[in-house]
Amino acid sequence: MEKILNYIEANKEAHLNELIQYLMIPSVSSESKHNEDTLRCAEWTRDAIKNAGIEKVDIYPTKGHPIVYGEWLEAGNVPTILIYGHYDVQPVDLSKNNWFSDPFDPIIKDNKIFGRGTADDKGQLYTHIKSIQAHMDTNGKLPVNVKILIEGEEECGSNNLDIFIEEHKDMLACDTILISDTEWFADGLPSICYSLRGISYIEVTVTGHNRDLHSGTFGGAIDNPLNVLCSIVDKLKDEYGRIAIPGFYDDVLNLTEEERANFKRLPFDEAEYCKDLGISSTNGEFGYTTLERVWARPSLDLNGIYGGYTGEGAKTVIAPDATAKISMRLVPNQRADDITKKITDYLVKIAPPTVTVEVKPLHGGNPVLSPLDSKGIKAAVVAMEKAFGKAPVFMREGGSIPIVEVFQSVLGAPAVLLGLGLPGDNIHSHNENFDLDNFFGGIKASAIFFDEITRV
Amino acid sequence: MEKILNYIEANKEAHLNELIQYLMIPSVSSESKHNEDTLRCAEWTRDAIKNAGIEKVDIYPTKGHPIVYGEWLEAGNVPTILIYGHYDVQPVDLSKNNWFSDPFDPIIKDNKIFGRGTADDKGQLYTHIKSIQAHMDTNGKLPVNVKILIEGEEECGSNNLDIFIEEHKDMLACDTILISDTEWFADGLPSICYSLRGISYIEVTVTGHNRDLHSGTFGGAIDNPLNVLCSIVDKLKDEYGRIAIPGFYDDVLNLTEEERANFKRLPFDEAEYCKDLGISSTNGEFGYTTLERVWARPSLDLNGIYGGYTGEGAKTVIAPDATAKISMRLVPNQRADDITKKITDYLVKIAPPTVTVEVKPLHGGNPVLSPLDSKGIKAAVVAMEKAFGKAPVFMREGGSIPIVEVFQSVLGAPAVLLGLGLPGDNIHSHNENFDLDNFFGGIKASAIFFDEITRV
Repeated sequence: MEKILNYIEANKEAHLNELIQYLMIPSVSSESKHNEDTLRCAEWTRDAIKNAGIEKVDIYPTKGHPIVYGEWLEAGNVPTILIYGHYDVQPVDLSKNNWFSDPFDPIIKDNKIFGRGTADDKGQLYTHIKSIQAHMDTNGKLPVNVKILIEGEEECGSNNLDIFIEEHKDMLACDTILISDTEWFADGLPSICYSLRGISYIEVTVTGHNRDLHSGTFGGAIDNPLNVLCSIVDKLKDEYGRIAIPGFYDDVLNLTEEERANFKRLPFDEAEYCKDLGISSTNGEFGYTTLERVWARPSLDLNGIYGGYTGEGAKTVIAPDATAKISMRLVPNQRADDITKKITDYLVKIAPPTVTVEVKPLHGGNPVLSPLDSKGIKAAVVAMEKAFGKAPVFMREGGSIPIVEVFQSVLGAPAVLLGLGLPGDNIHSHNENFDLDNFFGGIKASAIFFDEITRV
Repeated sequence: MEKILNYIEANKEAHLNELIQYLMIPSVSSESKHNEDTLRCAEWTRDAIKNAGIEKVDIYPTKGHPIVYGEWLEAGNVPTILIYGHYDVQPVDLSKNNWFSDPFDPIIKDNKIFGRGTADDKGQLYTHIKSIQAHMDTNGKLPVNVKILIEGEEECGSNNLDIFIEEHKDMLACDTILISDTEWFADGLPSICYSLRGISYIEVTVTGHNRDLHSGTFGGAIDNPLNVLCSIVDKLKDEYGRIAIPGFYDDVLNLTEEERANFKRLPFDEAEYCKDLGISSTNGEFGYTTLERVWARPSLDLNGIYGGYTGEGAKTVIAPDATAKISMRLVPNQRADDITKKITDYLVKIAPPTVTVEVKPLHGGNPVLSPLDSKGIKAAVVAMEKAFGKAPVFMREGGSIPIVEVFQSVLGAPAVLLGLGLPGDNIHSHNENFDLDNFFGGIKASAIFFDEITRV
């Protein structure tokens, strides 16, 4: 391993220069004017994987942007790692003049590289390509079997990846999925994310009478669908911030004492959090801290509500229907389809007999959990500590990365989120950047991970 | 009186032909292309009043369309009646081809006259001009002092009438206000409306954090303004349909047994009502019938609600604010300003400390009640019975006619709503029409009213 780390140290400049070439390709997947750039970027990615020493690598066309997939399976009876990343990037908005340099002509400043895609995700995924090369150039082989899948539609919905995974189940079979597309809890604090929340997103429409009515002529005689909607929505939570849908918590995995202790050690400043949001106080489920609430407890939020007259001033109308968009964030071991059914049944049950209730499921994704004692997590801990000289912290993430759940459920393997970004990376925004220490350290961490996972 | 009624009977054809001339002027007040027509209609109205025998009649310019005002005050120590009506009409929409004749070239069919403004309000107001003429031509005088005010902006908000009334308080001083601009409860059922509900209309905005937040990253940690809005709106009514705002019912005048009995006698078909609205059942304040609820009990309705994402599909956002438009219909002796203050205080009080609540009063109007034993109502009962051969029923109206309340509060006189329309008149819609029996009967009722009010 020493030789490999020396190789990485010796090739820093070359690695950085290659990354700059990669970043100069404006692979904006959501803008068709960049379709040729995006294809060129897929080819560049394929060539980089091949140059790293993986001969078997191809471009797989999809209905959208192509997928690059390669594999090296000559390590024998050791774990198979599937690396996932994406070569496409977010659009850039130059109209506000808030990029201090060309987003597609990266510059180095304050030990960070600035440009679109630096942290999300070219810079992060490239660490794995370089760690593969470090092993290959040094030993002519890898300590594990490696599969590498780099898609080009993550920033526009990953619409074709689900199908690809389903259709290539056997080809993609693996023991652990390795993803670097998240960020550390704080600067200088190597972090391993081991759980993501899932989601159930529905739209509920309450319909009463058959047309707009005059609120003077009819007000008081009929149930108003807008009032009814507010009333049933209000019944979704109790006064302790708990979700009141029957059976909602049945499958919720409680936090262990170890996890709670881990979270408590993190440098989280509640006052600063409130100040940033412009609120006087947080509020949520009784008995849990803010980090526990957003990472490890389910939540329910209205994402939108509308009905009746929404223009300026007054209109004396009683509208026939009203709609709310409601999403619930789910935690292991809740299942999106089960929760969608439970909220649907509950909304229908609590609605008064004077209205009809229609519930439309809009979106669902299951939560993800890689046990802290799984091989992938254990190897990641060692890799992070050796690469960055500091034991990593454990974190979870309140949001959902649906594709991680697809990987897990279709391939049956746990995911390790070896994120290398930092909170100040400005991903999806102007002046996106990536810390160079995290880039070079990330190559080392990846290289060590390949080695460690054969031993844990 | 006999001679006067004979006069009216003998001049039916002439009266109808004059009305047709009146209806041919397209006095659409909301469309500036009709500004000249509207002015011409004011002049026509003035001339008609003059021809009826009231010499002192003038056109009063306003910032909008002019007001026509005339008076005849030579009756001595008898009541003074102020007649109110409007010479402007609603626009017509010919694009749907659903008028079977030219709206401004009236035709007679099935004993009804069809055209814009027939019932609302030219046909109704013209009955009073003709009844004045009947008295004048027969006796050379009127049995009461008469003031007549016909405005030209009722269909576009009566924006300048408030000011005119305030500025001409002394000129307009009267004992009773007489208005024919409403309709009967049913065909063949002469009706007297003696009460209108008032209104308090507010907009409430709940604000929490300072920007759109990701529902995954933040969901569960903060109070969501959309959920909070639903929660506080739901607290405005209890499970018996009563409004839960403290002190809300303090000034509510309870229905008398006589009124409840009057309403019960009306041909109201609850099943037909539900069928028309497409609902399975009415619902409202516990212990009251549908007519009582819409006419004589206060109500509270959401007229609009909006917040967060309201487009198609799902967006995982927690929005910083949400707004509801809420109106309450008020009954005697509630006061709009008092109720607006009470709901404002209550909303602020029940909102959680994690959000701010802003309440914006949008609109207010007090309820109106003319006591059943007032002189105007008593005279109207006799006039209706003699003119139509059937004792009138008493009804109230759930909507508000704000100008009636302004008349009452500024001039301190009760209003008599001697409506002549029918439920099938299609006012504000296509094929607006006015029953000829109601037109001719209305002239007689008006003539008798002038006579009766000096005696009751």
